[in-house]
Amino acid sequence: MAEVRPGGRTARVRASVLQATGDLLAEHGFAHLDLAEVARRADVGRTTVYRRWGTTTALVTDLLLDMAEQSLPRTDTGSLLDDLRANARLVQRTLSDARQSALFKAIIAAATCDEHAADALRGFYRTRVAEWAPCVELAVERGEVPAGTDPYEVIRAVSAPLYYQLLITGEVPDKAAADRAARTAHLAARAGAFV
Amino acid sequence: MAEVRPGGRTARVRASVLQATGDLLAEHGFAHLDLAEVARRADVGRTTVYRRWGTTTALVTDLLLDMAEQSLPRTDTGSLLDDLRANARLVQRTLSDARQSALFKAIIAAATCDEHAADALRGFYRTRVAEWAPCVELAVERGEVPAGTDPYEVIRAVSAPLYYQLLITGEVPDKAAADRAARTAHLAARAGAFV
Repeated sequence: MAEVRPGGRTARVRASVLQATGDLLAEHGFAHLDLAEVARRADVGRTTVYRRWGTTTALVTDLLLDMAEQSLPRTDTGSLLDDLRANARLVQRTLSDARQSALFKAIIAAATCDEHAADALRGFYRTRVAEWAPCVELAVERGEVPAGTDPYEVIRAVSAPLYYQLLITGEVPDKAAADRAARTAHLAARAGAFV
Repeated sequence: MAEVRPGGRTARVRASVLQATGDLLAEHGFAHLDLAEVARRADVGRTTVYRRWGTTTALVTDLLLDMAEQSLPRTDTGSLLDDLRANARLVQRTLSDARQSALFKAIIAAATCDEHAADALRGFYRTRVAEWAPCVELAVERGEVPAGTDPYEVIRAVSAPLYYQLLITGEVPDKAAADRAARTAHLAARAGAFV
C-alpha cells in the first residue's frame, strides 16, 4: 500500500503495544503485567514484543516516554496564577479519569518496590515539570515571584495535594481541589517559600 | 509470675505479631505478607495468629491502629505556624526513617489495589489528622486564619508535599522540606485558601 510510509508499521506496532500495556496496567497492576499477554491484546507477534521491549519495565518506561511526549504543552497566559491553574486542571483531569488514574496508581505502586519503574516514573515527571517550569521563570522575570524561586518546586507543589488525594485519602480530585492547589502554590511562591 | 497482669500475655503477643508484620511489610511488601511467616517471625503459635487476625488485611489494619494510637500527640505552641511546623517535622521524621518509610510505601502501594488496605490506611490518616485539627480550630479562635477554614484540609496540605517526595520524586524529605510544607500551608490558610 503506497500510503504506508517506511516506519509506519513500526509506529503502529508501538501504538498498539503501548495501548495494551496501559490497559493491562490499569486493569491488573504492574505485578501481573506479562509480555505474552500484551502481545496477544495488541494483536502483535510475541517475538516482536520480546525483541523490541524484552521486559515489562521496558514497556512501562516506553509507555511513560510516550505519555510525556503526548501530554499537552504548557500555557502562557501572562499570569502565573492562571498558568498554575491550567497546570493543576491538567493534572486533575488526568487523575480523575478512570483509566489514567488506575494507570498512574499501578505505576506509582510499582515504583515503591521496583527501582526501574521508579526511574521511569521520575523520568516522566522530570519531562512534565520541565515543560511547565518556564511559567515560573517568566513570572520571576515579570517580578511576580522573587528572584531565585525554584520553578521545579513550584510546579511540584501544585501537583502534590492532587496526588495526595489519589494515593492517601482515596478521593477523586475535583476542579475546586485543582484551583486550591494552584492558589496555594502561587501564594507560597509570591511569599518566597520556594527561594 | 506475680508481675504479669491478666492480659499481659495477650498484649505481648499482639506487640510481637505487629512488630513482625511491620518488619515483613517493610522488607517484602504487602503482596508477600504471609500469616504463617508472621507467626514464625513473632515466635507465636500459628493458630493464635490465624484465630486472632485471620487475614493479612486484618494484620495491617491492626498495625495501623496501633501506629495511630502510639504516634505523638499534637503540640499547642499558641502559633499555628509553629504547630504546623511540628506536625511537618513529625511526618518528615517518619518518612525519612528507613523502616517506617518502607512500611508506609508498602501499605500505600497495597491501598492502590486492595480496598481493605485502602480503608485501613484512610482510618489511620483520619485519626492522625483529627489529632492535629484542633491546632487549626484554635488558630481560627485566635483570628490567625479566617473563620470557616477547614482544619482537615490544612493538616493534609502540610503532609502532601512530603508524601509527594516519598512516592513520586523518590527523595527523602528533609527538615527544610518540612518547614517549607508548614510555611506554605500556613500562608495559604491565612489567605483563606481552605475556607
